[in-house]
Formats: sequence, C-alpha cells, structure tokens
Amino acid sequence: MLLLLGQIHQALGGALIGSKSIEIVGLAPIASAKAGDITFLSHPQFADQLQKTQASCVIVFPQFQDLASQRGACIVVDNPYAYYARLTQLWKSQHSPEPQAFVHPTAWIDPLAQVHPSARIGPFCWVDAGATIGANTWLKSHVSVSRQCKVGANCIIHSGVVIGADGFGFAPENSHWIKIEQLGGVHIGDDVEIGANSCVDRGALEDTVIENGVKLDNLVQIGHNVHVGAHTAMAGCVGVAGSARIGAHCTIGGGAVVLGHLQLVDHVHISAASVVTRSILQAGNYTGFFPIDHNATWEKNAASLRQLNQLRHRLKGLEKGNT
Amino acid sequence: MLLLLGQIHQALGGALIGSKSIEIVGLAPIASAKAGDITFLSHPQFADQLQKTQASCVIVFPQFQDLASQRGACIVVDNPYAYYARLTQLWKSQHSPEPQAFVHPTAWIDPLAQVHPSARIGPFCWVDAGATIGANTWLKSHVSVSRQCKVGANCIIHSGVVIGADGFGFAPENSHWIKIEQLGGVHIGDDVEIGANSCVDRGALEDTVIENGVKLDNLVQIGHNVHVGAHTAMAGCVGVAGSARIGAHCTIGGGAVVLGHLQLVDHVHISAASVVTRSILQAGNYTGFFPIDHNATWEKNAASLRQLNQLRHRLKGLEKGNT
Amino acid sequence: MLLLLGQIHQALGGALIGSKSIEIVGLAPIASAKAGDITFLSHPQFADQLQKTQASCVIVFPQFQDLASQRGACIVVDNPYAYYARLTQLWKSQHSPEPQAFVHPTAWIDPLAQVHPSARIGPFCWVDAGATIGANTWLKSHVSVSRQCKVGANCIIHSGVVIGADGFGFAPENSHWIKIEQLGGVHIGDDVEIGANSCVDRGALEDTVIENGVKLDNLVQIGHNVHVGAHTAMAGCVGVAGSARIGAHCTIGGGAVVLGHLQLVDHVHISAASVVTRSILQAGNYTGFFPIDHNATWEKNAASLRQLNQLRHRLKGLEKGNT
Repeated sequence: MLLLLGQIHQALGGALIGSKSIEIVGLAPIASAKAGDITFLSHPQFADQLQKTQASCVIVFPQFQDLASQRGACIVVDNPYAYYARLTQLWKSQHSPEPQAFVHPTAWIDPLAQVHPSARIGPFCWVDAGATIGANTWLKSHVSVSRQCKVGANCIIHSGVVIGADGFGFAPENSHWIKIEQLGGVHIGDDVEIGANSCVDRGALEDTVIENGVKLDNLVQIGHNVHVGAHTAMAGCVGVAGSARIGAHCTIGGGAVVLGHLQLVDHVHISAASVVTRSILQAGNYTGFFPIDHNATWEKNAASLRQLNQLRHRLKGLEKGNT
Repeated sequence: MLLLLGQIHQALGGALIGSKSIEIVGLAPIASAKAGDITFLSHPQFADQLQKTQASCVIVFPQFQDLASQRGACIVVDNPYAYYARLTQLWKSQHSPEPQAFVHPTAWIDPLAQVHPSARIGPFCWVDAGATIGANTWLKSHVSVSRQCKVGANCIIHSGVVIGADGFGFAPENSHWIKIEQLGGVHIGDDVEIGANSCVDRGALEDTVIENGVKLDNLVQIGHNVHVGAHTAMAGCVGVAGSARIGAHCTIGGGAVVLGHLQLVDHVHISAASVVTRSILQAGNYTGFFPIDHNATWEKNAASLRQLNQLRHRLKGLEKGNT
Repeated sequence: MLLLLGQIHQALGGALIGSKSIEIVGLAPIASAKAGDITFLSHPQFADQLQKTQASCVIVFPQFQDLASQRGACIVVDNPYAYYARLTQLWKSQHSPEPQAFVHPTAWIDPLAQVHPSARIGPFCWVDAGATIGANTWLKSHVSVSRQCKVGANCIIHSGVVIGADGFGFAPENSHWIKIEQLGGVHIGDDVEIGANSCVDRGALEDTVIENGVKLDNLVQIGHNVHVGAHTAMAGCVGVAGSARIGAHCTIGGGAVVLGHLQLVDHVHISAASVVTRSILQAGNYTGFFPIDHNATWEKNAASLRQLNQLRHRLKGLEKGNT
C-alpha cells in the first residue's frame, strides 16, 4: 500500500512543502511514526515530538511550518486533525474500498420497506415493513429496523443495532404493569453513525429523533421520545432516558446517564460516567463521579461521606461558638 | 385512523361525560394535545393544563370531573394512566394490529425445542434444543434462547436479547482462569418483557429465575443465578451480578449496578446510577451517585472529598479543643 | 445423571478419602447440597458449613482433611475451587457433551475468511473476508467478526458479540464530525471468552489487542486500540475507552469505566462501578463510587458534598482562629 505525497496533496489540498514524489507507505501517530509514514501534529503541546519524529511527512498548523519544514516534508493546513481524518478516508478508498450498493443474501427486507437503491444492507439485517433506509446508508450486520423507523442518507449503522424496539412504558395498576403500546417511530437524520449493539427505541406517541450528523458509540441506549440535536456525539455505554431533549453540538462521555424529561441546551459537555439529574440550560462542561482512590482510602472517605451533612452541622456549630 | 369516543368507552369502560359521537383521531400528551386528540391527566400537579388543553376528551380522576366537564368531554376513572395504557392497546389493535402466530422464514428452531403454536418467532431468532417458548410469546428478531431455557406465556422479548449465555464463572489457578461450566438454565415466567440487547445468563448449577410480570428495559445484564421477583422493573443499562436475589415490586433505575449475592426485599426502589453494595432488607428508596456540577466546581469538591476522612478528624480535633 | 466418586477421582486426581463406589448425582453449593451431591469448601470462613452439609463428598483443602473425613467422603486438594471447576467440565462432558466442529446452516462465512476446521460456528454468525477463527473456537450465535479480525484458538465468543466494528473516531471541523476511517483490526489471543453482546472495536491504525486467557463478561465495550493483558477479567457492562492499556492479571468490576489513553499495570483490581481517570502504575485495589444510602440521607449528604470545598476552607479558617 503506497501513495505519493503529491497524490495526497492533489486529493486533499493544503500547502505542501517538500517533494511530491515522496512515497508514503503508512499512517501513524506522531510518537510511533517511522520513515515512510505520514503523521500529524494534533495539538501544540506535542510540538516537541515534531523534531523527534521519523515520519516522512507531518501535517501541521501554520505556526509550525518553519519548525516542520526544517526537518523534512510537511503539509500546512488550518486543521491538521480533520485533514488527517480525510487522509484516512483517502487511504481506505485506495487500499480497501468499501462495497457498492448491495443487499446481502442473508438479509431480510420486507416488501413494504423502502430501501434506497444505493444503500448497503449487510448480513442478517432485518428491515421491516414501513421502514425507510436512505441513500448510501450502510447497515453492517444483524441490524434491526422496525416499522415506522426512518434512517436517513449516508448513515453507518453498526452490527447489532436495534432501531425501533418498544420504548419502556408501563402504567402501574394493582401492583401490576399495564403495557403502554409505543405508537411512535424513530426518525434518524443524515450522516448519523450508530455504534455496535446500540439501541434507539420508538416513541410512545411521537417519534424518537436523532438529527443530522449525530455520532453514537457502541452500547448506547436512547429511550423513547428522546431528541438528540445535530452533530452531538455520545461515547460508549451512555444511557439517555425517555423524553430527554439533548441539544446540538453536545458531547456525552462514556457511561454517562441522562435522566428522563430533561433538557440539555446546545454545546453542553458531560464528562464520562456522570449522571445528569437536572436540566442544563447553560453551555459548558459538567461532571459528577466519585474520584477513584486506593480501596482503603476510598473506604474511609466513603464512610465519612455518609456523615457529611452531620459534619457540616458540627462545623456550623463550631463557627457559632467562635463568633 | 379514527375511533369514536363511544367506541373507546364501550371497550374500556369508565364514566363518559360527553357525546359518544365525538371523533378521536389521535392520542397525545396533555401539553401538546390538539382538537381531535384524547389525552389524560396523570397527576394532580398538572391540573392547570386541564383548562388549557385543546384535546377533544380528557381522561381524569374523579376529583377533576367538574373541572374537566366544564371544558368538554371527559372520561372519569380511578386510574387515568392505566386507562390510557389500555387505550394505547386498543388504538394499536385497531390501527396496526399485531401479527398472529408465525415463525419467520429466517428463524431457526431446533427440532428438539418446544415452541407453543401461538408463539411469534421473528427474523433471525434462534431457539435451541431443549428450550421452551410459551403461548403468545413474541421473540422480535435476532433473539437467542439456548438449551434448558424456558420463556413463559405472553412475553415480549425484544431484538437482540440473549437468554442463556454462560454465566461468568472461573476459578483462579496458577494465575489462569479455569472455566466453571454453567450447568443450570434460565426460567422466565409469564407476562415478562425484556428490552433490546439485554442478556439473561444461565445459572451455574440451578436456574436463573425471572418471575411473572417482570419488565426489563434495553441493555440490561442479569448474571447467573439471579432471582428477580414478580413485577419488578429495571430501566436501561442496569447490571445485576450473579446470585443477587431481588424482591417483587422493586424498581431499579437506569444504569444502576447490583453486586452479587445480595438480597433486596420486596418494594425496594433504587435510583438511577446507584451502586447497591449491601443487602437491602427494608422497603424504601435508596440512592447513591455523585451529584453533577460545573466541571470546575466538581473538581474542587472531588479533590476535597479525597481528604474527607482527614477533614473529619480535624473537625473532631477542633471540637475537642473547644470543649 | 450419575458419576461414581471413583470416576471423578480417576479423571481429576486429588486424595480421595472414602469409597470409590459412592454415587454422585449432582453438584451443589455447600449450603444447599443434599445426599448424592458433591460440593466444595471454597474458603476457610465457611468451615462451619462443613459439619452441617448433607453432601456425599466434599472437596477440601488439606487443613480440613480431618474435619471433613469425620463426616464422610472427601477429596483433598490444594485448590478446591479449581478442582470444582474441572468437575463441572467433567460433568458437562458426560451429561451434555459439547458439539464437535460444525458450521450451522444459517451461518455465513465469507470464502476469503479462514476458519479452522475444528471451529464451531453457530447460527446466524458472520465471518467476513480476511477474518480468522482459530482451532476449537466457538462462536455461539449472531456473532460478527469483520475483516482483519483474528480470533485465536479455544475461544468462546458468546451470542451477539461484535468484533471489529469501527472505533469511535471523528475529527471536529466547522462544528461537524469528519470520520476517521479505522484502518486497524482486532487481534484476540487463545483461551479468550467474550460474553454476550459485548463489543471489541477495530483499531484506528494498529490493532486492538486482547491477549491470551482474557475473560470478558456480557455487554462489555472495548474501544479502539485498547490492549488487554493476558488473563485479565472484566465483569459485565464495563467500558474501556480507546487506547487504554490494561495489564495482565487485572480484574475490573461490573459497570466500571476506564478512560482512554490510560495505563493500568499488571495486577490492578478495580471495584465495580468505579471510574478510572488516571493511569494506575502500582498493583492494588482501587475503588470510587458514591455509597448508597436511604434516599433522604443521600440527598442531604449530596447537597453538602456540593459545598465540600467551601467546608474545607471554613474548617481551615477555624483552625487558624484556634491556633
């Protein structure tokens, strides 16, 4: 597998400083790149690695052009990380191109489903009556898309994803649960990626909505009637309970939980493993998890924590005594 | 899609105040209901919405009969939410009735499995030798039911559920793990619903048991030899470790973890994301997660938390000095 | 189902004290074992159960030989729990032997995949072009193994596992996410067991690696470029973010989260539901979760926790005033 630096430059642009005939045989992180590799400088804090790297070309910000060109070839761009992302796409298209439109012989598409002719439907996928799959969208394998569920264009739905299972709705009566039929569907926009074994439930009355450009990692749970705004990303194992309304351009760290019926405005960033128990109406970074420690230390602090309110009152008492 | 109010009343009962010929074209939450919709008042705290709603009929508690009938048609019942649940069932049965007994052509049922003739076995489901599927039970798609696993009657098992994978059992020896074969099965009662991609492991020696009426949401993990009492409900992403014994009529919030070999008595309610580390022998509500905050505030409090036991001792020292 | 004690002894060794002709009809925990059962004493703290058990034979440590032989037959070994594990294997091989090499008629193996002739490929499994499945490995059902993914010998991959979905990699540009193609694969060693519906993502540039003897429970998420050292075990619902490097012989409790790019050395033990936010360079036990409590108590302590840093400063002020 090989690309000339000139081919990369021609395909992706940027300012190339160095020879177009340099042979690139691999992509690598800056710390482990060898001769023949192309790499990138993702953050000014890694600038010291620029001088040490053996890479044959480094993609850099304009402010590092001088430093980078002293050591060898470089491509100067405003967003090296995004350039690098496009380079991975170029690399893949050259060396292991994706399949064209296909329906795998083991897939089952209901005659009443609407699947765009350009879609790619992998092994053991099931698209039920009334479901819609958009142009260029790819269901990898073992994906379920139920009735009334619509997946937009250019989506990647990874293996084992379940779109349109019933939302979790039951009314209590005489200590039993009465099922609330889930009459809504799921509406997934364009350019959405959903990770393996994630679930997006159908709505109770209206649709669960995932807007354009949303990226969900593996094992994510999206409850019924949730609304996820455009270009929001959630890492693995996140759970979003029913009717939560999450804004655009948010990020939610792995294992975080968002309770039901809450609102998160645009540009809210939730740290991993945090539990969102109230609406967040101001953009920013929010966190809440117990810091890890040696088990013995944790035990003492956790025990004290269970008396914290008492401690506060005792402190208040002391303060009064002192005044 | 349309039902007359009289048809609803005839099917589901309650005291109808208003004309039987009113046409109902949809179900909606009280806050967004429009003319033609039927809605319900779920909780007295939403009473102010009763006067504002445009709905053509509201299902209400007896104490709201006067207020509701002043504004239009209403149905008066003791449990509006349960009535509404049954209405969703009626609506669905009229407008998108569920399929009768079927075995999807892609499903694989072992000749030595016992599947009730009224069961519904969806695409890519696998029912192994020695497994049993009860009357009217529905396996949606990509469901696995292994040998020695029994699913009762009137259950809904959503897509991707795995019933009867091996419990996680290994004995350490010379720094290696020796597999403990899981010789038990799984016993699931009647009227159980299990959400998409959830897992119920087989027991080590005896069966893992899910009693009648239990409702599990998506991505729930039930370890080997767990016993879940009747009518208990667990929200998404809950994990229950091996041999835990959970009572009847419990609720466990999303993302909570129950450690192994614990006992929870009946009517225990665990908040989302809480970690149950000891048996709970008294009914009630239990919680334990770190409250979310602005990241900067959290950082300071988390840092202080790691010294909390020290702080307690310093406080004690001050108190002694003061007396 | 029946084995003579002499057959067990002959197959598994140890020092048998008692008659070889005793009939064993079941395996059971010491607390519930009945006549005809064989059981084991796993820990000295359960020694009082030794005298009460009705079991026909007890597997014990040497120090309990006298006590055990007074009450009936026993087998004396250095590691009763490992002996018991092997006994479950013997029992299973006698009473419900595992299938020999097979490819289920519903499985789909790409002609360019390499599947060892001794492997067992269950219903609805998909092995893509360029994937490799080792000797005696068993894919249970609905398993996906994508291109460039290698599963070693003697592995058990439970139902619904996804090996080789794309890692979660996107570069931000103009408030959109640009996909970083995941060009690496997955390399899984020998004797690995992966629980139902777990996911192991392919690497971004290099492979995600699971070394020999690793045991993962259900619903575990392993991000791209993670490296899991030999004989490490992770309980259900664990999430390990990208590029984390976890040592050998570690254990990670259920629902724990390990953030990306961290290193855990060998023999690190993480408690359930703990969040690993920094590298752990010293073997030991680490914990971090909020202790559960009655909801009302938790509310007070959680409220105080949000002022903890303030409290610390107030305490410091008091201390200064006192000196």
